[in-house]
Amino acid sequence: MAEKRDDDRTKKRRNRRDTPLRDVLRVPGGRRPDLTAYDASAIPAGPADKAAGLAATAALAPRLAALQERLYASSTTGDRRRLLLVLQGMDTSGKGGTVKHVIGFLNPSGCRVRAFKAPTAEERAHPFLWRIERALPQAGEIGIFDRSHYEDVLIARVRDLVPRERLDRRYDEINRFEKSLAEDGVTVVKVFLHLSYEEQRDRLLERLDNPEKHWKFSPGDIEERAAWPAYREAYEIALDRCATDEAPWYLVPADRKWYRNWAISELLLEHLEELDPHYPPADFDVDECRRRLLGT
Amino acid sequence: MAEKRDDDRTKKRRNRRDTPLRDVLRVPGGRRPDLTAYDASAIPAGPADKAAGLAATAALAPRLAALQERLYASSTTGDRRRLLLVLQGMDTSGKGGTVKHVIGFLNPSGCRVRAFKAPTAEERAHPFLWRIERALPQAGEIGIFDRSHYEDVLIARVRDLVPRERLDRRYDEINRFEKSLAEDGVTVVKVFLHLSYEEQRDRLLERLDNPEKHWKFSPGDIEERAAWPAYREAYEIALDRCATDEAPWYLVPADRKWYRNWAISELLLEHLEELDPHYPPADFDVDECRRRLLGT
Repeated sequence: MAEKRDDDRTKKRRNRRDTPLRDVLRVPGGRRPDLTAYDASAIPAGPADKAAGLAATAALAPRLAALQERLYASSTTGDRRRLLLVLQGMDTSGKGGTVKHVIGFLNPSGCRVRAFKAPTAEERAHPFLWRIERALPQAGEIGIFDRSHYEDVLIARVRDLVPRERLDRRYDEINRFEKSLAEDGVTVVKVFLHLSYEEQRDRLLERLDNPEKHWKFSPGDIEERAAWPAYREAYEIALDRCATDEAPWYLVPADRKWYRNWAISELLLEHLEELDPHYPPADFDVDECRRRLLGT
Repeated sequence: MAEKRDDDRTKKRRNRRDTPLRDVLRVPGGRRPDLTAYDASAIPAGPADKAAGLAATAALAPRLAALQERLYASSTTGDRRRLLLVLQGMDTSGKGGTVKHVIGFLNPSGCRVRAFKAPTAEERAHPFLWRIERALPQAGEIGIFDRSHYEDVLIARVRDLVPRERLDRRYDEINRFEKSLAEDGVTVVKVFLHLSYEEQRDRLLERLDNPEKHWKFSPGDIEERAAWPAYREAYEIALDRCATDEAPWYLVPADRKWYRNWAISELLLEHLEELDPHYPPADFDVDECRRRLLGT
C-alpha cells in the first residue's frame, strides 16, 4: 500500500527497509482509494534524499541492464516472457521523464516504447484495445506504454467520450485483457504517477518560462487541469476496479523526480528479479565449433 | 572516401582534422570498391587511441541528445524530417553494439529500433520492401535498422535466394525507394561496418568461450563465415550500385569498437547538425497562459 501522509516517515521507512517496494507501493483493490490521502511528495521507502536517490538509481542501472539482457537471451530459445510497464498520470507527472531517465538505462534493442496520443481515425474505427495489442512487447522485450488503454476509462470518462454503460464495461474488458496477457507470459507493471495539483502548476509554469519547452505546452493543458477533481475520481475508480493480482497498480509519489526514477527502477528490478531469466545453455557442441572456427 | 592502408595514418589524420567525417568515410559511387584495400582497424580521422575515443564519444552524447530533442520538438508543428540509420555488416561487426552504445545515448521515446531477421512467411508473401516501409521512423524520430533491405541483395545474392534477374532489379528498386524517402524528409545514413576476417574469428571465439554469450552463437555462423568472399563481393556490389547522393554509404572501420562508436556518433551528429532542427515558437499567448495558470 502506498504511504499515507505521516509525520514519522523516517521511522516507517527504516522499518520497511526489507519490504519489497512493490508491497509498499501496491494499491490495494477492493475499495476505492482516496487519492487526496496520499502525499505526492512522500518517500514511502528507499533513499531518504535526492543525493542518495540519484546514487541508488545509478546503482540499479547496470543490474537492470543485465537482467534485460538475460530476459532477451532467454527468449531466443523459446521463453515467451516479457514485461510491460504501463505509465499513467496527469500531465507533467513524468511519464516521458521516466522513459528518458529509467528506460534510457536499458539496451534500446530490447525495448519497445509506445506513446499513445488521441486515437487516429483508424484506431477509433477499431475496439479500444486494438491499438494496444499491436504495440505489445514481443518475447524477451520490455515494453513501455506512455499512456495506455487506461485513457479509455480516464479521459473517456471525464470527457464523456462514450456512453456510460459502454465505459463501465471497459473495466472488466481491461481486466480480462490483462489476465490473458499474464497467461501469455507478460508481467504487467502498472504505475500511477501521483502528482500534486500544486506541483503540476509549477511544472506547467516552468514550461511557459522556458522557450525551449513551449512545444511541450498547449493551452488545452489548462483546461485539462480544470478537470483535476474529475480526473482524480476517474483514476480512483480505475485504480480500484483494475487492481488485480495478475496486473497490480503501483502508486508512485511523483512530485520528486529523483524519487520517481528510483522507485520505478526498483519496481522494474523487483519484477525482473522475480522472473529470474537465465542465459540459455548452448544447443551445439562448443568444443567442436571452436575447433572448426580455429581452422578458418 | 574511407582510409586505405597507409603507414602514415597519423599525418593524414592530422590533415583531415577539419574535414567532416562524412567526407572521409563516404564510399564513392561509380566504381566497385575493393574492400580488401580498406583496413578494418584503421583510424582514418578523429581520436587517435581508445582513451581519447571513449572521451570524445562521451562528449558527443549530450550534443546528440540535444539535437534529437530539437528534431522531435520540431515535428510537433509539422516538420516531417527524420533520420534513418541503416547498419549493415558481417556477423559480429557490431550492429547490436552500436545500438547499445550509441543509440543508448538518445531518448528512447524518439528512437525506433528495428532488427531484421530472416523474413517471416507473411513478410515473404509481400515485396521485399514491405516490411521495411512498416518500420520506418515517423516525423521527428531517429530510426535504426539493424540489418535492412540490403539483406535482400546480400544474403539473397550469396545464397541464391531469388533468380539473378530479379535480384539485379532490386538495386534500382532500392535506389528509387531511398530517393523517395529523401524526398519525404528522411535523412538516410547507411553505415557499412567493415570488419576483418581475423577479427570476426576472434569475436566468434569470444562468444564460444563465454557461456553467457553462447546464445549469440549458432553453428550457422561458421557456414556464413565460409562464404566470406561471396559476402564481400555482394557488399562491394551493393556499396557501388546504391551509393547515391540521396542516401550515401559510409564505410566505418569496425575492428576497434571504440572507433566504431565514435565514428557513428560523429556521423549522426554531422547529419543532425546539418538538419539544424529548431524548437518551434509558441503558437499561443504565453503571458496570458501564465496568468490563467497562476489563477488555478
